[in-house]
Amino acid sequence: MSIGEYKKCIDRELKLYFEDKIKYSEEEKIIYEAMAYSTNIGGKRIRPILFMATHNIFSNSEVPMGIPCAIEMIHTYSLIHDDLPDMDNDDLRRGKPTNHKVFGNAMAILAGDGLLNEAFNIAFQYVVDHPHHAKALKYLCNSSGVDGMISGQVIDILNENKTVSLKELEKMHRLKTGALIKASIVSGAIIGGATEEEIVLLEQYGDALGLAFQVIDDILDVTGNEDKIGKKVGSDATNNKSTFVSVIGLEESKVYAEKLTLKCYDILENIDKNTDELYEITRYLLNREE
Amino acid sequence: MSIGEYKKCIDRELKLYFEDKIKYSEEEKIIYEAMAYSTNIGGKRIRPILFMATHNIFSNSEVPMGIPCAIEMIHTYSLIHDDLPDMDNDDLRRGKPTNHKVFGNAMAILAGDGLLNEAFNIAFQYVVDHPHHAKALKYLCNSSGVDGMISGQVIDILNENKTVSLKELEKMHRLKTGALIKASIVSGAIIGGATEEEIVLLEQYGDALGLAFQVIDDILDVTGNEDKIGKKVGSDATNNKSTFVSVIGLEESKVYAEKLTLKCYDILENIDKNTDELYEITRYLLNREE
Repeated sequence: MSIGEYKKCIDRELKLYFEDKIKYSEEEKIIYEAMAYSTNIGGKRIRPILFMATHNIFSNSEVPMGIPCAIEMIHTYSLIHDDLPDMDNDDLRRGKPTNHKVFGNAMAILAGDGLLNEAFNIAFQYVVDHPHHAKALKYLCNSSGVDGMISGQVIDILNENKTVSLKELEKMHRLKTGALIKASIVSGAIIGGATEEEIVLLEQYGDALGLAFQVIDDILDVTGNEDKIGKKVGSDATNNKSTFVSVIGLEESKVYAEKLTLKCYDILENIDKNTDELYEITRYLLNREE
Repeated sequence: MSIGEYKKCIDRELKLYFEDKIKYSEEEKIIYEAMAYSTNIGGKRIRPILFMATHNIFSNSEVPMGIPCAIEMIHTYSLIHDDLPDMDNDDLRRGKPTNHKVFGNAMAILAGDGLLNEAFNIAFQYVVDHPHHAKALKYLCNSSGVDGMISGQVIDILNENKTVSLKELEKMHRLKTGALIKASIVSGAIIGGATEEEIVLLEQYGDALGLAFQVIDDILDVTGNEDKIGKKVGSDATNNKSTFVSVIGLEESKVYAEKLTLKCYDILENIDKNTDELYEITRYLLNREE
């Protein structure tokens, strides 16, 4: 399947999921509307696509669509909370008003909480039906917690207005962005039926890809087109955030992104299966303009 | 075991859990400190105690202590987020400064997120080791999400400055407070090995107990001793919140609390096992002063 087809698939699934929830709830439906708003505002769906594509390397069975939906909900919860006035105080996300701008701060906090809970609800239901896959979901859950995304955000906050080393910056991004990207790939591999050896390779691939993804994000923050990236160019500098560009410079960042991408290709070549789709996704992520 | 012994047990377990986490983490240890602060500030531990006591009705095996710890973390996450300036804006909780007063709003949001994630991490690890108990954890997870606590908080916010009916008030509390109390009991029963029939009875018990708990909370908000309840008497009225006392009056609330408690006793009598400990806990909750 092409990246566009994968994206359509997850877009449709998430749209239906919330339409259904909104339809069958009472006065509390505002919370589902807030959750749906940010989830369906037009993300690239990188993480669920990576889950699906990786799953399909190893399995001919249909993708259990609940899991990529849950992955996108975890990602969206983190964005809603990161955008809050008490955190990064962002008014725009993907070119649209952030959740708290539309629903108010209280509802935005709850919408984030709701998405995280909902994701785990889906994950537990999946484990009830497929107990032998508990490990894959444990891996996913681990990536969003203090061993992953949350510590990444904590370090990000602690680093504000500070000059950090490349090593510190990498650690922060490995946790904040990389952990969930890697977990999407690895959980897809486990559920798809990859061998231990293949999982180890895909962990390395996920690690390099997650980092490459962030380096490119930082480059786009400087060189990107505002309409395409959906936020003001140079917003990291305005927010006094260290980026790969501010730490090692623009040219060096481009070289680094390419090096990481080549590393991804190398690893994929070592997997004795058809990894063309992951190759395509990697190429797309390197060359993206948004 | 007595209520006090159960409490000591969960207090010790949670203290050790975070001491260990703080010891082995780096610059991000501040997040564990924030999580530990609110978790170990001196709650009554009602929910984990209910889990443990219910488990012990049906099983002679040791209580899997991760689960009651996870339950208390879920409870604490909800308190931290509810207390935020954007939500109820409370400065004190259990007589001590609330999380955001000590660690700042950003870290308090993350500490709440961290506790919810940590709870599910523990729950998934348990399911990896005990896949046949996935259903119990699914039940627990469901209670903290939009089908439970979150919708309760949403309705609470929507009801502010409004006169609500007894039915609406009951719905709100069944979700906001009752859902996790009931889930603590039911998950303890499932993991302990209760029969389907016993689980149905304990669901009814949990439902009545959760409601009784809240009615008594509302009574204590009017008649309580500030030092004991750890917040200002009359704070619900100050915050323009509907309570059982404001909706049906103080005397009627006392009658209602007693009626619900008698219902709890009745249900426990119908369970053909030794339910003395749950009976004791129910009695303690009715007569508590804090």
